[in-house]
Amino acid sequence: MELRIGVVGTGAIGEDHIRRLTEVITGATVVALSDINEENARRIAKKYNAVFYKTGNEVIWSPDVDAVLIASWDPTHAGYVLECIKAKKYVLCEKPLATSAEECLEIVNAEIQGKKKLVQVGFMRRYDTGYRELKEMLKSGIIGEPLMVHCCHRNRIPGPQHTTDMTIKNSGIHEIDVLRWLLDEEYESGQVLTVKQNKNAESELKDPQIMLLKTKSGVRIDVEVNMNSHYGYDIQCEIVGEKGVIRLPDPNTILTKLSGRNSYEIYADWSFRFTRAYDIEIQQWIDSIKGSGPVGPSAWDGYVACITADTLIKARKRETIEPIIIQPRPEFYC
Amino acid sequence: MELRIGVVGTGAIGEDHIRRLTEVITGATVVALSDINEENARRIAKKYNAVFYKTGNEVIWSPDVDAVLIASWDPTHAGYVLECIKAKKYVLCEKPLATSAEECLEIVNAEIQGKKKLVQVGFMRRYDTGYRELKEMLKSGIIGEPLMVHCCHRNRIPGPQHTTDMTIKNSGIHEIDVLRWLLDEEYESGQVLTVKQNKNAESELKDPQIMLLKTKSGVRIDVEVNMNSHYGYDIQCEIVGEKGVIRLPDPNTILTKLSGRNSYEIYADWSFRFTRAYDIEIQQWIDSIKGSGPVGPSAWDGYVACITADTLIKARKRETIEPIIIQPRPEFYC
Amino acid sequence: MELRIGVVGTGAIGEDHIRRLTEVITGATVVALSDINEENARRIAKKYNAVFYKTGNEVIWSPDVDAVLIASWDPTHAGYVLECIKAKKYVLCEKPLATSAEECLEIVNAEIQGKKKLVQVGFMRRYDTGYRELKEMLKSGIIGEPLMVHCCHRNRIPGPQHTTDMTIKNSGIHEIDVLRWLLDEEYESGQVLTVKQNKNAESELKDPQIMLLKTKSGVRIDVEVNMNSHYGYDIQCEIVGEKGVIRLPDPNTILTKLSGRNSYEIYADWSFRFTRAYDIEIQQWIDSIKGSGPVGPSAWDGYVACITADTLIKARKRETIEPIIIQPRPEFYC
Amino acid sequence: MELRIGVVGTGAIGEDHIRRLTEVITGATVVALSDINEENARRIAKKYNAVFYKTGNEVIWSPDVDAVLIASWDPTHAGYVLECIKAKKYVLCEKPLATSAEECLEIVNAEIQGKKKLVQVGFMRRYDTGYRELKEMLKSGIIGEPLMVHCCHRNRIPGPQHTTDMTIKNSGIHEIDVLRWLLDEEYESGQVLTVKQNKNAESELKDPQIMLLKTKSGVRIDVEVNMNSHYGYDIQCEIVGEKGVIRLPDPNTILTKLSGRNSYEIYADWSFRFTRAYDIEIQQWIDSIKGSGPVGPSAWDGYVACITADTLIKARKRETIEPIIIQPRPEFYC
Repeated sequence: MELRIGVVGTGAIGEDHIRRLTEVITGATVVALSDINEENARRIAKKYNAVFYKTGNEVIWSPDVDAVLIASWDPTHAGYVLECIKAKKYVLCEKPLATSAEECLEIVNAEIQGKKKLVQVGFMRRYDTGYRELKEMLKSGIIGEPLMVHCCHRNRIPGPQHTTDMTIKNSGIHEIDVLRWLLDEEYESGQVLTVKQNKNAESELKDPQIMLLKTKSGVRIDVEVNMNSHYGYDIQCEIVGEKGVIRLPDPNTILTKLSGRNSYEIYADWSFRFTRAYDIEIQQWIDSIKGSGPVGPSAWDGYVACITADTLIKARKRETIEPIIIQPRPEFYC
Repeated sequence: MELRIGVVGTGAIGEDHIRRLTEVITGATVVALSDINEENARRIAKKYNAVFYKTGNEVIWSPDVDAVLIASWDPTHAGYVLECIKAKKYVLCEKPLATSAEECLEIVNAEIQGKKKLVQVGFMRRYDTGYRELKEMLKSGIIGEPLMVHCCHRNRIPGPQHTTDMTIKNSGIHEIDVLRWLLDEEYESGQVLTVKQNKNAESELKDPQIMLLKTKSGVRIDVEVNMNSHYGYDIQCEIVGEKGVIRLPDPNTILTKLSGRNSYEIYADWSFRFTRAYDIEIQQWIDSIKGSGPVGPSAWDGYVACITADTLIKARKRETIEPIIIQPRPEFYC
Repeated sequence: MELRIGVVGTGAIGEDHIRRLTEVITGATVVALSDINEENARRIAKKYNAVFYKTGNEVIWSPDVDAVLIASWDPTHAGYVLECIKAKKYVLCEKPLATSAEECLEIVNAEIQGKKKLVQVGFMRRYDTGYRELKEMLKSGIIGEPLMVHCCHRNRIPGPQHTTDMTIKNSGIHEIDVLRWLLDEEYESGQVLTVKQNKNAESELKDPQIMLLKTKSGVRIDVEVNMNSHYGYDIQCEIVGEKGVIRLPDPNTILTKLSGRNSYEIYADWSFRFTRAYDIEIQQWIDSIKGSGPVGPSAWDGYVACITADTLIKARKRETIEPIIIQPRPEFYC
Repeated sequence: MELRIGVVGTGAIGEDHIRRLTEVITGATVVALSDINEENARRIAKKYNAVFYKTGNEVIWSPDVDAVLIASWDPTHAGYVLECIKAKKYVLCEKPLATSAEECLEIVNAEIQGKKKLVQVGFMRRYDTGYRELKEMLKSGIIGEPLMVHCCHRNRIPGPQHTTDMTIKNSGIHEIDVLRWLLDEEYESGQVLTVKQNKNAESELKDPQIMLLKTKSGVRIDVEVNMNSHYGYDIQCEIVGEKGVIRLPDPNTILTKLSGRNSYEIYADWSFRFTRAYDIEIQQWIDSIKGSGPVGPSAWDGYVACITADTLIKARKRETIEPIIIQPRPEFYC
């Protein structure tokens, strides 16, 4: 049985997901799509033999569509997700789930009222083989209880229109999500350190920043979020436990000896680094929908990530340590 | 369009390919299968909703089967492949293509007479990301002309009934194929060094062995083929060029600091190491069949690998350097 | 010309320095020594053909002694150093220079009054090849301006009588010194994060701790100081600049493939890790004394390290970010 | 007690040894020297406060000289060593001991007749920390019996006047010596593979070459000797045993992330790579002379290395596998 997918948003990520659903993923077909850039969307629709719709909502409500993938502009996410819940359709929404914690809670409440888990958020790092193995090793107890996590999230250059807040809300949010999933516990407080300004960064963008998080049990996390590493896209994660340390490996690119250097390539951007994670994320989403429903990051996870990011932004502005206050987790998400 | 695949041979590898075709690969369905172990084959047929046939030939000739994957006992490969050619069906045959060079040539001739390339041989290393990047870098000229290749092919322990000849013919054959593909040229001569016997090996198995190959242009290749490494499955390949060196990376497993050691895991066997290569091999095979026909290792490549392995076995027995004499390559395979 | 050295304090480190001065260093001879453990000191005196004195001051004032090395109990350091200044003798004092900033300033003032630089403090990390190369590379500008430094200082187990304050004052002090030397600027403020308690640590020892430092120019430093890593002695230092990253390498121990792991040894303690740094430190100290005087870490550096450590301890207790207030640097130390 | 050293030959290596004996080594002083380049030798004599002599023999027979270090032109080694034996003085002779096996045997016989071990040959690799640890680990039995050794000896560019024979006799000779010391057994036969010519090499220099050695117990050794690696000086040594593998580590230079590459420096030549090995070699030679006599590579080791190299050169010319025939080892060297 081929699951019929509608895609809302066919920019770079959306188009890549359509290619993935068509050429890589088994068990799904893209049948409908929509985008504000109509010309480009029509071209893609033609290429992949899908139907173009004028609006995202038409895609969502189309009787030919079994499930929806949302990859549109961030501020539109919440509206489309709510529409999917109304239409009682499974939806995989690219992160962030919404641009405010309020909207996230609105989605959470709508989903609870609908009495069915329909929403999954596109935190693809949870599907990266490295992070998965870290989680397994943590569970195995081989390093004892985790005590500290040291992370780096480095982009070569920021995307256009990147802002100081986005460093936390769009980039750092990956660590915010994946670390609470790895550690399997919630945050208690957060702080952000501003750093000597990288002269390569636009002056209005404070870059880099360091996010400090403390979990309920006292685990300390530091995350360098650096939009102008200049040298490449580099994701590091080291977990220090009571008896040892485990660390995410680098991608295994060719070892080279040339001109007095022993070296290997560092990827230029996230698309290379997390290609496989996206493949696995979407294959498992498709498989889960055909089975007993999605098991990936939930609307609740989307809410927690959002409120944590907002708290960190506040902490940065106030130069304080801020408590991270999360609503009690509804029974529905336990 | 789903390509309907018949699978002949449902032992460990065969069953894994059926799982792969069903759960990982897009665009194909396993519809028919056969195996001498009827009970097991019936179980798998039920599980994957395929039809069980008493014989491989029935699978091959079934009108419901578009293409055939052969994963049966080595000595049966040639017969099934010839049958596929007769039935004018695409066939992916696990290596080796046949157990003798004569049989390989019989296949080659049958394929030429049929005037259509139908046969692909399952040399999956050509689909490993690492080898592919090595090939690209070689082509780029960054290290100049290749001069030497140093390889290790280490198994933790040999399979049951492994023989001294199989070390070359079943294990070393992977390097024989992938290195001529990497270097894009043919072998001129070969030699095999016997090594101090590993006491962990059965006494009738000479282990390890070192294969030495020289290409037409004078590139020197040494391959340690070691069936009793005792520590893991380890594939190494280093190409030394005029200006630098490139090297296959290890799989990127979690970095660990424990008990005074900085370490990472070495896989225990080939199934972990080349899982992705198999995925890519079969996906590309499926895609190519739907397109303009298979582009992977051909029947000719199967023949060259076979005759090279046979020559090396002769060289080992005679303790000589033997010329590797290959038939002129037919126009059909250029 | 052999420089005649008197050693005050012949515990583990003192004895090791005597061995070093005798067997490794050229141009110096140990002629006199003293320790409160008289029996042991007499044994060592006999072994190395030196004269045993009842008190450190006798060693210092002995006319046979050209220069003094102090490796006695921390609280006695300041007194002996002041005595050396009085005796107008060069002195290499193991860190810390003194146990309080006041004592450090007393030494500084005495040295200034004496109008001659006599004092060097035993911060041996500045002599480690790795740190030296980091400093050179920083100066070369290859990574642009430094922005952040991520460090780990991990001991396998703490020494006996180790306290929560000592984590900063005796262990973290190495990073406090070497990082301001590396970055060539002073600290502005500090903070200490307490971390989930390692159950392997004694309950009265808060372990691990994270020291956060900010320099005048805004460079951010985080140092994990972990007395119970359980797995080994591990020193990490990564400097993130505007254009790239440089990182201290691990000691180059034998690469091993055994039992499914690719690994190399992590040293068990500092003595292995910094053996060569100590050799170089003391050889250069000897050479400098014969030349134009000591150029290593000065009494002033000892003072800055001490006041910084004290401020961090205060910050930890108060859970605040504390300004690091350092006296104006006297002309004498510029 | 300072040992008074006379140095014969003050070219690059000789001068470096004088610096080493003066500034690094403890317990020795260079008092006399000689070289055919008189002007340069006089300059060095002045700098290090030593006496210049017109001839090497004058240095050797000077009553002020306790022991001799020979670093002159290769063809003069044997004569000076024989003179030292006559003068009953300890001598450390840079490799090779002599340019022919006959001369080596002459030295061996002279030493036996003199009834005292006076000669040590400058095979400094035996003093490299990495090789020493390999030897210890081999002895520990952790990898079982050694079965194979894979080595690379790569120079960036050859020295001036380098010849095809010198690749084995001057470069490969280091592996010839260090591997029989590591494995603690003798060679049985050897073979040399010529390789596709590196176009960067002068056409009259066959480069690279691969030396193949087989020991008495059947251990197989392959050594790539490559004078035109183009990228750096690179020494690799991997020992494959019955249960695992051990491998020489690379020098631990700074890890760097720049311009899309994760890298570290490869040294440009041997002087950086083996600086410490030379330090340890000469310190231990000095210490041993003051003790019970030299324990480093003996005249016998010099002979075995020489005859092995000669046999390999013959094997290369004849394109055969040649037996390596060594005289019975005299009691004196057991």
